[in-house]
Amino acid sequence: MNRIHRDESALYYACGYSCDNAIYLRLGEEAYFITDGRYTVDAEAHVRGARVITTRDLPKAAAKRIAKSGVRKITYDPMEWDVYTFERLRSHTRVSWKARPRLSQKERIIKRPDEIGLLEEAVAIGAAAFDAFAARVAREGPGMNERQLHQLATVTLQGDEGRPLSFDPIVAIGSNAAKPHAHPERKTRLHRGDLLLFDAGIKHRRYCSDRTRTARVTKNFAFDIDQRFRDKQTQKAYDAVRKAHDRAIAKARSGMRARKVDALAREVIDKAGFGKYFVHGTGHGVGLDIHELPVISSRSRTRIEDGMVYTVEPGIYLPGKFGIRIEDMVVMENGRARVL
Amino acid sequence: MNRIHRDESALYYACGYSCDNAIYLRLGEEAYFITDGRYTVDAEAHVRGARVITTRDLPKAAAKRIAKSGVRKITYDPMEWDVYTFERLRSHTRVSWKARPRLSQKERIIKRPDEIGLLEEAVAIGAAAFDAFAARVAREGPGMNERQLHQLATVTLQGDEGRPLSFDPIVAIGSNAAKPHAHPERKTRLHRGDLLLFDAGIKHRRYCSDRTRTARVTKNFAFDIDQRFRDKQTQKAYDAVRKAHDRAIAKARSGMRARKVDALAREVIDKAGFGKYFVHGTGHGVGLDIHELPVISSRSRTRIEDGMVYTVEPGIYLPGKFGIRIEDMVVMENGRARVL
Repeated sequence: MNRIHRDESALYYACGYSCDNAIYLRLGEEAYFITDGRYTVDAEAHVRGARVITTRDLPKAAAKRIAKSGVRKITYDPMEWDVYTFERLRSHTRVSWKARPRLSQKERIIKRPDEIGLLEEAVAIGAAAFDAFAARVAREGPGMNERQLHQLATVTLQGDEGRPLSFDPIVAIGSNAAKPHAHPERKTRLHRGDLLLFDAGIKHRRYCSDRTRTARVTKNFAFDIDQRFRDKQTQKAYDAVRKAHDRAIAKARSGMRARKVDALAREVIDKAGFGKYFVHGTGHGVGLDIHELPVISSRSRTRIEDGMVYTVEPGIYLPGKFGIRIEDMVVMENGRARVL
Repeated sequence: MNRIHRDESALYYACGYSCDNAIYLRLGEEAYFITDGRYTVDAEAHVRGARVITTRDLPKAAAKRIAKSGVRKITYDPMEWDVYTFERLRSHTRVSWKARPRLSQKERIIKRPDEIGLLEEAVAIGAAAFDAFAARVAREGPGMNERQLHQLATVTLQGDEGRPLSFDPIVAIGSNAAKPHAHPERKTRLHRGDLLLFDAGIKHRRYCSDRTRTARVTKNFAFDIDQRFRDKQTQKAYDAVRKAHDRAIAKARSGMRARKVDALAREVIDKAGFGKYFVHGTGHGVGLDIHELPVISSRSRTRIEDGMVYTVEPGIYLPGKFGIRIEDMVVMENGRARVL
């Protein structure tokens, strides 16, 4: 398929290299990686299966190759392009452009064994960082405000060489955990015994990890999945989230629709009486991007297949009271979900 | 002017608030801030001069307001929109769309006094972080690799509450400083006496700082602008960059074209025989974005005016040998440049 990419994950998937100013172009048997002079040396060392072209004007250089090739139709993802750059490209060409949203993500939905290996390594590194963060919170956390905790989480995840993160971590204390996208606040301080929600991930050789734990901060806590809260309603909600998480993982099957996986979790939370407080889908695919296909929600008709990697992350959010979420990444293998 | 924005800096400039999923829409006397439920509470607390609308489908909600208003022409910046979202917006409306690249940045080119005050505070915080980083490098730096130094710089700039940075800092040792966009390397380690190039900035209440220093790492160094290098060619290049930087700042005048400011720096470096190694423009505007207007380059016809804030950052890069850059931010006041 004649195609063109601009997004970094799409570029990397197509040819094993990416940078923040490049175009990947496949025209029949020929492929080009078009970039500016800052990246030529790196691109020539790492790009696979495409010729590196250096230029100051990327859309124009792409248009020139397209004209030369004689191809008549090119597929692109309208989510990868800003209007300005795409219009420049289009104005210099006479081909027919076929829009296909999520073109690269659709191809990436089934992971290769080497990708699953990297995702597994990413998850292990991420899990070790959760332990390291818990140890530091147990020691230094009480008295810190949420911003300081967020910064402590960030530097712990990054390690001393600045490992990239999959996303800005979420660190929320008590009732702040009820806001799914709350920014850390200076006015909220951690006390021993508080509920702490931590949602974070790292990138390992480009592949993302993603995990959430909710825990009561004790002297030696370690984000264990077994948790005891003093407040009865909190415990009831925690147990429901835990059961929903475990059930969706135990009963997910290849061939099932993604909305059925969502229902496996949602039914537990509905039954416990917290249905209206589970305000998001059960999960999302993870790979080169932190949010990929499949979408695991009540509206998703995608069929789950072996090789898909996604999160299972039910949650209950009681405004002004608490938020609870438990999240793990799974891979579908031999028809079942295995926790990474 | 009827207009629509999507970019966070443009949103913030239009109404004093932004988030990563919003549309700002001005239609005659009416203005709307359209966002999803995650941001409603924050938006209602902070948006000025616009009505907050909460929706799941932003382009559709915007289209509805446009249809109701009866306006016939709306200005937009094609650099702010991805093709997918803009096509959805366009397909739901019948107005005529007028593309104006850098619409918001063009308005932001002259800073208000309160903006200059914030930029000045940002520069002071950034400068203090340079000092703090230098002190830590003097103590702990020798033996560290570039990635570790980069991470040390990052956490020092962020402080314990995770202050946002204007951009990923550049930390380069010796000949690595010759690559203007080099990634930090594990294999390069710092030794006392090495040349260290450090280009970094922080954000203070949304406004960016930007500064570069090149220094020889000694026991008590502090990124002083006065530097002594042992190698004669390095010293000659440093002196030329310093003189170019000082001259452009001393002789810049309101009313002058930006390319003349560029020439003020470039002539010094040309005369010293390093002209072909000064491979970029002399500077760029700074404000809510780290790169704004005006562009200070040999091709820029912009007229410099009072209230503009921009960087002066000449550099000399000798491949395989060294890279030198000195950068400060200036504001035009009473016809002259004042260093922030």
